[in-house]
Amino acid sequence: MKIGFLGPRGTFSFEAAKSYSNENDELVMYRTIKECIEAVDNSRVDKVVIPIENSLQGTVTETVDSLVESKGVFIESEIIIKISQNLMANNKYHFEEIKEVYSHPQAIAQCRNYIDKNFRNADIIEVSSTALAAKEIKNKNNCACIANMSCVEEYGLTLLEENIQDNEFNQTKFWVLGREVQRKGTKMSLIFSTKHKPGALYNVLGLFNENNINLLKIESRPAKTFLGEYIFLVDVEISQRIGDTIDVLRRECSYLKVLGRY
Amino acid sequence: MKIGFLGPRGTFSFEAAKSYSNENDELVMYRTIKECIEAVDNSRVDKVVIPIENSLQGTVTETVDSLVESKGVFIESEIIIKISQNLMANNKYHFEEIKEVYSHPQAIAQCRNYIDKNFRNADIIEVSSTALAAKEIKNKNNCACIANMSCVEEYGLTLLEENIQDNEFNQTKFWVLGREVQRKGTKMSLIFSTKHKPGALYNVLGLFNENNINLLKIESRPAKTFLGEYIFLVDVEISQRIGDTIDVLRRECSYLKVLGRY
Repeated sequence: MKIGFLGPRGTFSFEAAKSYSNENDELVMYRTIKECIEAVDNSRVDKVVIPIENSLQGTVTETVDSLVESKGVFIESEIIIKISQNLMANNKYHFEEIKEVYSHPQAIAQCRNYIDKNFRNADIIEVSSTALAAKEIKNKNNCACIANMSCVEEYGLTLLEENIQDNEFNQTKFWVLGREVQRKGTKMSLIFSTKHKPGALYNVLGLFNENNINLLKIESRPAKTFLGEYIFLVDVEISQRIGDTIDVLRRECSYLKVLGRY
Repeated sequence: MKIGFLGPRGTFSFEAAKSYSNENDELVMYRTIKECIEAVDNSRVDKVVIPIENSLQGTVTETVDSLVESKGVFIESEIIIKISQNLMANNKYHFEEIKEVYSHPQAIAQCRNYIDKNFRNADIIEVSSTALAAKEIKNKNNCACIANMSCVEEYGLTLLEENIQDNEFNQTKFWVLGREVQRKGTKMSLIFSTKHKPGALYNVLGLFNENNINLLKIESRPAKTFLGEYIFLVDVEISQRIGDTIDVLRRECSYLKVLGRY
């Protein structure tokens, strides 16, 4: 089986893709989440593993926006990975010797208090992945990066401090996407937009409530038209009445897409 | 008056801060949104102007998360700025000569289709602001950046193409934050978390509905404890019953913060 993931190697996305794959599977790297989703939509890979939500940073909005644009892609399962961030450099430095700290914006955000405390005078440099940050500082003196532990070995770096994220409860949820609609599973994710009338969102949530469908999450994303127009992503715990509820939703909503049952 | 903004100069945040200020005001630059909010909270400046939402990219989550942590900061007004992104370089290049494109992750996201179409083989390099991207490429051949038009003049660059954003309706909303609670205005923003029981969010929205308070926006952010626990940011159009409604909300919610009326 071919499994796509968000590259480069050595990121948490890579770790999630590895945990899902067997030794006979081929892992295929893509540059963006959008390219991952297009790859499975166009049958270039069988599955992709993409991040959807971090317990500190919230929803990965590029994933939601790309799923709105995709055609035949469905969620097949979810994977949860514990995230720990680590400080590394090309040598053993004291913190005050570090002039620049490289990392991905999300990792920087996850270590915001730690950075503010220890690196108030250093430049914080955002790059497109934690693995790229590690690669970048390999030959740069007096620079550090925040990255996945596997980068110490992968890029021959020195670990300065481990587990530097601000919050102990740092987990990322990944979705495995494929092309098949599943008929089993207790969870369902849906994207919808409501018609323009006051209370429209409240009425949709009321429909879930009446049908014993438990709302686990609601997230709004801009409709990409005007400020103040939204689409909603919900995760629900389904009941036996899910089929009928979706029929009603199709009439009530101006847009509805079932992302999958899993 | 001292007005703080998210630096560097030459970004849309700078433009918003300028549009709010008079000629006698002093503009004070900060590195992060969190530092802007702390500056007004600790009375180092009188007001700050910070981005809260873009019509394509959605809510600026760092703003919401920093407001949850702030103590005496309130929204006083909102400013809406039309966003247009432009491609520039240190010389007149053909697109195929461009090896690297620099910009802020949000500007890259706003031009995602344009980049995918024209720069499939170039490296896309994320930096912490569009102004920094312009500064970075000033002395780099065969590189381009995506930035605010003012950077052409500010950094002596050559404009390669203007208005390259994917969507015409690209606006960013900024909030002006100060230390005074306002008693007038038709809008209100609130942050709350619900008690742990099924339908708790639905009940809060029902309370707005019963009291003729129109929900304009709902956004969820992680509670930073476990995956699946959230706080909610809502913008509402208030009615005369807003005072009583807030009293009930204080009893019903496990956390409630009125961010301001404006």
